[in-house]
Amino acid sequence: MNAPELRRNPTDGRWVIVSADRGKRPSDLKSAAVQSQKESCPFCPGNENKTPSEIFAAGDTARAPNTPEWRERIFYSLNPVVSLEEELDRQGEGMFDMMSGFGVHEVIVNTPLHEDSIATMPLEQLNELILLWKSRLHKLRANPNLKFAMVFGNRGEKAGATIEHSHSQIIATPAVPYRVAIEITTGYDYFISREKCVFCDIFENEIGGERCLWENGNFIVICPYAPRFPYELWIIPKRHSSHFDETEDSDLAGLASAFQSAVKALNKTLNDPPYSFVLHSAPFIEKRMVHYHWHFEIMPRLSNVAGFEWGTGFYINSVPPEVACSTLKESLK
Amino acid sequence: MNAPELRRNPTDGRWVIVSADRGKRPSDLKSAAVQSQKESCPFCPGNENKTPSEIFAAGDTARAPNTPEWRERIFYSLNPVVSLEEELDRQGEGMFDMMSGFGVHEVIVNTPLHEDSIATMPLEQLNELILLWKSRLHKLRANPNLKFAMVFGNRGEKAGATIEHSHSQIIATPAVPYRVAIEITTGYDYFISREKCVFCDIFENEIGGERCLWENGNFIVICPYAPRFPYELWIIPKRHSSHFDETEDSDLAGLASAFQSAVKALNKTLNDPPYSFVLHSAPFIEKRMVHYHWHFEIMPRLSNVAGFEWGTGFYINSVPPEVACSTLKESLK
Repeated sequence: MNAPELRRNPTDGRWVIVSADRGKRPSDLKSAAVQSQKESCPFCPGNENKTPSEIFAAGDTARAPNTPEWRERIFYSLNPVVSLEEELDRQGEGMFDMMSGFGVHEVIVNTPLHEDSIATMPLEQLNELILLWKSRLHKLRANPNLKFAMVFGNRGEKAGATIEHSHSQIIATPAVPYRVAIEITTGYDYFISREKCVFCDIFENEIGGERCLWENGNFIVICPYAPRFPYELWIIPKRHSSHFDETEDSDLAGLASAFQSAVKALNKTLNDPPYSFVLHSAPFIEKRMVHYHWHFEIMPRLSNVAGFEWGTGFYINSVPPEVACSTLKESLK
Repeated sequence: MNAPELRRNPTDGRWVIVSADRGKRPSDLKSAAVQSQKESCPFCPGNENKTPSEIFAAGDTARAPNTPEWRERIFYSLNPVVSLEEELDRQGEGMFDMMSGFGVHEVIVNTPLHEDSIATMPLEQLNELILLWKSRLHKLRANPNLKFAMVFGNRGEKAGATIEHSHSQIIATPAVPYRVAIEITTGYDYFISREKCVFCDIFENEIGGERCLWENGNFIVICPYAPRFPYELWIIPKRHSSHFDETEDSDLAGLASAFQSAVKALNKTLNDPPYSFVLHSAPFIEKRMVHYHWHFEIMPRLSNVAGFEWGTGFYINSVPPEVACSTLKESLK
């Protein structure tokens, strides 16, 4: 087996990507070292030939593809976990369900500057990046075989980044990821019993409170009430919307500030920790949902997650979110 | 806040243990180094005074408590995440649900021999350890406020072990852990549509197949069809039973061999990898369930889990279970 597959675990309903050609032998499983040399960085301007050919780049219209002078640049991943070259194929394997590894895996270089990051780039750059995520999702939505797309970023080796230069990724698949699927059913149950979106309730409950790190007209940044990880942060839009890519640009204004404040506070408090962020947005195939509400989750990678937590899903968090929030707030003063 | 709390995240229903006194400041979050010196090992015979007073130890009836000459030894954790000293208290905090950190956290030293491990100890020792887990759960079940107990073990620093000497742990709480709760509802749905237990179906489907690593009269060890982690293994009893602690001793015969074969294969193939194991068993408060089936999951900790996987629950596994199984099988020849 070489082609990637999506397989469903029948005991909990979770889809897993089995991507064999990413490493077969035990010795291949070591995490790759982070590529940090600026001189050899494949994401720096001038090294465009070191990446797959670009899908899009923000820059002057006169600019030739795969040359410098871009502001953000997108290409397919060199090591895709899913691919459009796979035909979409669903089948049962006895009692099991699987799909071919059909999908899209894109890499977005967030900035041409090697040293820049979400915490330090100009807000206009970050805003353009956010709108680029939106427009990519909008493009991917046009493919009826893609049910869902995730926007995410890893910073630092411990968070899974293999290249230092600030970048984000999009993976679009015919399956809805486990955590979002569960949020949707939980949100549905909540809505049925209370006629309200759980995220709207959280926003109303938390605003200005001891777990509210930051807010502006459109967004709040909170330490969630029951976080899996120390210093976990969520960015929630105040206006209800299930699909990030269907949110008006004007309603996205302020997301750049919210994002940057969140990451700055983490960097100052925790000394540039490794972290990951993920967008949770409703599946493309769903119409606008009253019971789902897109948001970003930012997870610093500070302590080892023990096997107990892997195995049971019962997380132990040694930093109450109220304590985390008060510490993070200090750093923004 | 100092007392531990169980908090429920309203967006996915997951309970999280917020245990503040395990470390409040960012600098406290570093993983502790593994205590590996045999001379100072608190779990070695002769150092009984370095642990909390024992609850039970298997040994000669004439033996005085907290002295050497035991075969397995149990005490409350020095750093408990939950405690019987907390009163059980459930309450809403606005829209949120929480419980006091009521519960039990026990540590079991698996063997008096510092160098021994599940992979190397005599089978009689491992069998006694397994029966000890069962009898502890049976004891804990008598407390009507405890809904669930997890038996688990971490081996190696990367898997979360802070002491090298082979040990296991039990955490009992008034909440059912997330993954088990979801397995139960998924198993229920499966049963409703097919009148069969999903684990019984897996066992019948996998026995003798390319994902079946090992079997004896009572147990099979498989690489599951859609594993989250490379080389993940499950040990499933052939005879249907929802509660580990209600399984007859005679039906547990052979579990020691199954466990040891699984861990031996991992050790040989992956050069003594860090790993964790967890027992999934039905909650105490449930009667025998036709749609749930206890089992052990063993997860080697080989590669970093990237933020993408944290954030979405969509795991990428670079080793197909068929490949893992064939490699592991070689090592048992």
